[in-house]
Amino acid sequence: MRHKYRKYQTKQWVLIALSFVLMLSTSCKKQNSSSVNEPEIPVEVVEKQDILRVEPPNWWIGFKNTTLQLLVQHPNISEWAPEVSYTGVSIEKIHQADSPNYLFIDLNISETAKAGKFNIIFKKENTDDLICTYELKSREKPSEDYIGFDSSDAVYLITPDRFANGNPDNDTNTDLQEKTIDRTNNYARHGGDLAGIINHLNYIDDLGFTAIWSCPLLTNDMPESSYHGYAITDYYEVDPRYGTLNDYKSLAQEMSKRGMKLIMDQVANHCGLGHWWIKDLPFKDWVNYQEIYEEHKDSWTNEVTIKSNHKRTNNQDLYASKKDKAALTDGWFVSAMPDLNQRNPFMAQYIVQNSIWWVETVGLGGIRQDTYPYPDKDFMSDWAGAIMNEYPNFSIVGEEWSYNPLLIGYWQEGANNRDGYDSNLKSSMDFAMQSLILQGLNEPESWDQGLVKLYEGLANDFHYASPKDIMLFLDNHDMSRVFTQLKGDIVNTKMALSYVLTLPRIPQIYYGTEVLMNDFEKPGDHGLIRTDFPGGWEGDTTNAFTGAGLTEVQKEVQSYLKTLLNFRKSCKAIQEGKTVHFSPENGVYVLFRILGDETVVHIINKNEKPIELDLNRFEEMNLKGKVLKDVISGKAVVWLDSLKLETKGSIILVTKD
Amino acid sequence: MRHKYRKYQTKQWVLIALSFVLMLSTSCKKQNSSSVNEPEIPVEVVEKQDILRVEPPNWWIGFKNTTLQLLVQHPNISEWAPEVSYTGVSIEKIHQADSPNYLFIDLNISETAKAGKFNIIFKKENTDDLICTYELKSREKPSEDYIGFDSSDAVYLITPDRFANGNPDNDTNTDLQEKTIDRTNNYARHGGDLAGIINHLNYIDDLGFTAIWSCPLLTNDMPESSYHGYAITDYYEVDPRYGTLNDYKSLAQEMSKRGMKLIMDQVANHCGLGHWWIKDLPFKDWVNYQEIYEEHKDSWTNEVTIKSNHKRTNNQDLYASKKDKAALTDGWFVSAMPDLNQRNPFMAQYIVQNSIWWVETVGLGGIRQDTYPYPDKDFMSDWAGAIMNEYPNFSIVGEEWSYNPLLIGYWQEGANNRDGYDSNLKSSMDFAMQSLILQGLNEPESWDQGLVKLYEGLANDFHYASPKDIMLFLDNHDMSRVFTQLKGDIVNTKMALSYVLTLPRIPQIYYGTEVLMNDFEKPGDHGLIRTDFPGGWEGDTTNAFTGAGLTEVQKEVQSYLKTLLNFRKSCKAIQEGKTVHFSPENGVYVLFRILGDETVVHIINKNEKPIELDLNRFEEMNLKGKVLKDVISGKAVVWLDSLKLETKGSIILVTKD
Repeated sequence: MRHKYRKYQTKQWVLIALSFVLMLSTSCKKQNSSSVNEPEIPVEVVEKQDILRVEPPNWWIGFKNTTLQLLVQHPNISEWAPEVSYTGVSIEKIHQADSPNYLFIDLNISETAKAGKFNIIFKKENTDDLICTYELKSREKPSEDYIGFDSSDAVYLITPDRFANGNPDNDTNTDLQEKTIDRTNNYARHGGDLAGIINHLNYIDDLGFTAIWSCPLLTNDMPESSYHGYAITDYYEVDPRYGTLNDYKSLAQEMSKRGMKLIMDQVANHCGLGHWWIKDLPFKDWVNYQEIYEEHKDSWTNEVTIKSNHKRTNNQDLYASKKDKAALTDGWFVSAMPDLNQRNPFMAQYIVQNSIWWVETVGLGGIRQDTYPYPDKDFMSDWAGAIMNEYPNFSIVGEEWSYNPLLIGYWQEGANNRDGYDSNLKSSMDFAMQSLILQGLNEPESWDQGLVKLYEGLANDFHYASPKDIMLFLDNHDMSRVFTQLKGDIVNTKMALSYVLTLPRIPQIYYGTEVLMNDFEKPGDHGLIRTDFPGGWEGDTTNAFTGAGLTEVQKEVQSYLKTLLNFRKSCKAIQEGKTVHFSPENGVYVLFRILGDETVVHIINKNEKPIELDLNRFEEMNLKGKVLKDVISGKAVVWLDSLKLETKGSIILVTKD
Repeated sequence: MRHKYRKYQTKQWVLIALSFVLMLSTSCKKQNSSSVNEPEIPVEVVEKQDILRVEPPNWWIGFKNTTLQLLVQHPNISEWAPEVSYTGVSIEKIHQADSPNYLFIDLNISETAKAGKFNIIFKKENTDDLICTYELKSREKPSEDYIGFDSSDAVYLITPDRFANGNPDNDTNTDLQEKTIDRTNNYARHGGDLAGIINHLNYIDDLGFTAIWSCPLLTNDMPESSYHGYAITDYYEVDPRYGTLNDYKSLAQEMSKRGMKLIMDQVANHCGLGHWWIKDLPFKDWVNYQEIYEEHKDSWTNEVTIKSNHKRTNNQDLYASKKDKAALTDGWFVSAMPDLNQRNPFMAQYIVQNSIWWVETVGLGGIRQDTYPYPDKDFMSDWAGAIMNEYPNFSIVGEEWSYNPLLIGYWQEGANNRDGYDSNLKSSMDFAMQSLILQGLNEPESWDQGLVKLYEGLANDFHYASPKDIMLFLDNHDMSRVFTQLKGDIVNTKMALSYVLTLPRIPQIYYGTEVLMNDFEKPGDHGLIRTDFPGGWEGDTTNAFTGAGLTEVQKEVQSYLKTLLNFRKSCKAIQEGKTVHFSPENGVYVLFRILGDETVVHIINKNEKPIELDLNRFEEMNLKGKVLKDVISGKAVVWLDSLKLETKGSIILVTKD
């Protein structure tokens, strides 16, 4: 008997799956009523792995959700019938796929199940059994202890191939398509790895960062440009060129010792064209647009799209055509990245379980989800909901590259969306403020240009469910470096940094910003943006970790950022305080963060020549006569009638130590 | 006994006023218990007007709100005690002001009051009584019959001094500061008036407009530039240079005969510096910043502000300082316009009653409220609420000049604002789409420029409580003419017009757009934008009313607009239908409006050379094989596999006649 996969609507299949669980758990009890009386003595399991692939490779006891769906891949496995005999574990349903080489097995892992190994025995008439030993582990810490990143954190974003080469032994790998490194080619592998990050954790920690978001570390077995990591070809494997799963765990453990959080970059929208399943898809609709895959070239823009129109407004647009909506959701992001169909419930469950597996295995402190508006949005809400259901204190941030606050707000949990949509995402990304900060600093002052863009941009916070949980940055791995965007202006770069680090946001800074890494040579070139961090490679003449070979200006910015980050780390007013700002006047923009008796004053001053700032304007802040400390210089400042601003730049003052 | 005016918070005073009403209506009943037994025979009133000024000059019976507050101005009137003896009318409270020359009298007009005249008798010991005869009128039609503008309308915006001079006799007025007209000076009076509009109603009606919004028609007795109308110096008087109150009523009546709606432009934020009350303000806080009036000049922008920072985001901004909020709300818009203090409850009631007086007196079909974000926003909500309470089918549109959809959405009734604010405004103004349409048509196509701006701009509609109730326009009296903004491109101008007239909006078009009026000579110059309409003055060599002297291109656009407007007038799909649009491809953007079996197709095509539009992309619209009519040419078009677009321009098709 062959079950045909039925295409349920996302919402529907959750409900239907739920009723299956209820229905089957009852019937299973009846069938296995004898097992209730079995002695609870662990049976010694003879370990065996006859099966090509079972995913997830292991699971845990103690989750709220007691169902686990195994993907089993093996030649003609559809002809075999699996059986399980383990206290508290039962097979709820066996699903055949479109390909004969897959089975999907729904297991129920009840509260009575204990950690341990058991065999899944696949039976077929007149043939020897196939045995697959499967492990249920104990969870290492309670769900509540998986604390996600928040506004108390500052996040260091790393492109792992380009940060530091800690283990030259894994630079070459003959099993993969890109076998060697070539540091002269910006789009080749350069050899950076997990060991490189681990080796320099003290540096990152000392700088004052409390979290690391690394671009994806999973295998990208692609013929070229695989260094960026977003074309995953195995969702359960660390790319061998970065190290092993144990290296990934070590990174998390070493970070945990320092009180730091590890954020994993996950990709639910697409895989790499080299993914193992592409050659034999479980279901016909596992990947979108397999048959009608077609390129589309616009006659005006010469843009080529593979069915994706990249019109991300379709997720919200009341007037969007079905055709456009499908093109956004189902189109391929680029031709090397097949678009996953999250409306297939087996794919949906695969992605959810994969995410949870990584949270639990590595002990993550957050997830960054790539290309957030491209997958099916109802699924994405279910996905985030499933993770947050297991880890109530966790954090997920979705990447929507939009300068429109309406879209940024739409994706954050608690948005009062008219369509009722709730993403279950704690955090979204503030491309709007990112853009406005750079514009405002680059522009001369006028009624609608310059600092007013920062001021009025921040005013949009009234729309957000939780502004302080939004991630803000000046650049990332996909855009020109902030120092390049600010045209090499050191003072503007420092002002941008101090502003981002003072706002009610989760600040994210891209590796190397502290030493003014840039892409002046070819602005916006992705390979160049992701330049090797100086000192990350044996023999580097400049070493930003030790300071050797850095220019004075680089050292100054590195030290400036270090001072600010370490100040922010213990400053509750910035992390949780209320905000008051005053409209820019005379090229000066003043913002306050206040919590209890702690007040932080952030002054952006664009005037090159000395000016007197009239402090009476800020009377309502009740600082008159108080002694404040200049966070950078450490000097005392008395808040009286006016403050002399000697030259262009930020000043950050705080009322108490 | 002198009552000191107490400064209540807006919300508070409403409640307090309400309890006064309850309390006093009881005590009044006791005092006047004898009057209940009075015979209900109209007493003949000896009419007399000893009092300098009473406002409102009359009132009506039959309102839901039974309180009426009279402003009485007369030398030392505070020494007099008013009395009223008229069935159903009682004095609830007498308020003294800061100036001895004012009294504010709260009257209760109960359900038993009949229309008629009665005397308010002011008494003072050892002095003859002062008598003021006051009239309560019957209402001419039920509240429900005051139907406001909506998406079935198309609004013609007129600057009345510049449209047509119907009555040269009122061009000069020696009682006013600007005594004469000077058509050679763009900032002087030109003589346009109410008679001019009335004379040309057939033209406006024939063009297909169903509503007229005229810039303010009330007296602006200012020394210069009084033609624009926004510096009102008497809230109860039609500017004699425009005509009389009867002329205003005639305009409304003539429009009503044609099924057209008259929209009044009201100004609650400020008056003109020449207002009669400026010389003797009733209360010290009647006008904001009287004493600390000061100019502020920004050192970078050289902008001079009179305490208003014009930072309109302060109305929403969670982080706005008190100082900035006050500067926005209380600052003077410009130095010739004193800022009214709507937090003074007498001012608040004055403005509400004035608005209702005009609705009722003229029989308005809507109000456009000027500079909406500048007055006290809680008052503005109360103001609109008070009007909508009396006229449930009425419409009010507020002017917030912002390109930010967050602010546009904030002001519309039904916005899910996090701060709980509801404006009670049916309509707000879509400066965002206005700007995007012009940008998109001016720009070449690329991934983020051109038609995609129209497409993604319209996608923001998901945020609005009611997109179709938002007013959309291509220009207005404060910005460069659309033909100028579109650089004199006729085809682009026609595309902009057809798009605006097809969207789910209330379209507004500025007078003269139909004959390509422009300000090329000095783009953006306000006086030039408000150029005289050709044919509006005796002896004009060009006459757009008759067509005499118009160029072929002017005639073409006039005829094009007339065809579109008259089509729109009977097209329910445009007025009320649902919207579906397809992302721009190959320089073509297609939008559909659908209601029942009526479908309107709007195609914007930027290609100069002929192209084939693949209609299979629009399969979901179910038009295959249907015969549609080209609205402009009247020709039939069969919807098959493709449609040949011969040249750049809009095509508007409709499925049925």
